[in-house]
Amino acid sequence: MALIHYPVVNKNGEVIASAVTNLDLHDIARASKTYGVIGYYVVTPLEDQKALVEKIISHWVTGVGAAYNPVRREALELIRVKDSVAAVIEDIRNSGEEMPKTVVTSAREYPRSIGYETFREMLETGSPYLLNFGTAWGLSESLISEADYVLNPIKGKCGYNHLSVRSAVSVILDRVMGVRSEK
Amino acid sequence: MALIHYPVVNKNGEVIASAVTNLDLHDIARASKTYGVIGYYVVTPLEDQKALVEKIISHWVTGVGAAYNPVRREALELIRVKDSVAAVIEDIRNSGEEMPKTVVTSAREYPRSIGYETFREMLETGSPYLLNFGTAWGLSESLISEADYVLNPIKGKCGYNHLSVRSAVSVILDRVMGVRSEK
Repeated sequence: MALIHYPVVNKNGEVIASAVTNLDLHDIARASKTYGVIGYYVVTPLEDQKALVEKIISHWVTGVGAAYNPVRREALELIRVKDSVAAVIEDIRNSGEEMPKTVVTSAREYPRSIGYETFREMLETGSPYLLNFGTAWGLSESLISEADYVLNPIKGKCGYNHLSVRSAVSVILDRVMGVRSEK
Repeated sequence: MALIHYPVVNKNGEVIASAVTNLDLHDIARASKTYGVIGYYVVTPLEDQKALVEKIISHWVTGVGAAYNPVRREALELIRVKDSVAAVIEDIRNSGEEMPKTVVTSAREYPRSIGYETFREMLETGSPYLLNFGTAWGLSESLISEADYVLNPIKGKCGYNHLSVRSAVSVILDRVMGVRSEK
């Protein structure tokens, strides 16, 4: 999985680099660990942001936080910081893993969007996928158009679908990787 | 729905009042609005915490935040701040609504825990329920034992179930109130 801070769009649709949010690291790492995600990439090209993320991770993975809260360490050690989606792909290639297909998420529906049940079945085949989430007002159109697959938006009951990225990640992981016997 | 900051337990199982987290207000209000929750109560008896919550809400509901981001206003105006679960029940009584049964969530399973499909069917009857989530290390045993129902924990794939309360709320609302046609 990857959480993208660049290229994403702002309120006016302009491409920007967003700031990293501390709770995005914690919440999404904890959800990743819960649902069995193999790696959680935080993507930002900004040096100060990368340094900030590394500092937070080291506090919880090797610093005093690791002893204070070992279960938090188990989650945060899934995080790897990279400059770009290309660098994420490169990292996966270097690890010797099979190259993943890319899947992007969006609050908008596209003609080629696929449903959750479809993606769940794709995951169950064992093939690797890199699932990308956007921060700010969402992934840039360039990233969306380059992806192999686009996932359907999460639709609310009353036409309101403005979930935080932390909520969207949690709901989507539960839908596509959640334990099905949990009735 | 209610997010409880007292009585909850800390890491050592002692009953405490936890601090309010800004993103709990935003993320949970946005998830509530998305899934059609009628009201989102933030429960804390601490005066400074209540003042903080009211200040944040007023920024987004009537202050400059309302013009900057109207969809955020729509979510945050669901929030009401109360001293205790008893005060929440009193508020619902005063509104003339039918008295709700109380449902609590926990990361632990209890002999009387009910499943998500069961609770979904209970909601579909139209009867009102007050769904309570704990902050810190979870709701106090007193609150859990007084509740009408306890909901099953969210189980992960690998035995890790340490979701943030923001993630847990999102996943649970999706399971019990999500649009079922979203395959």
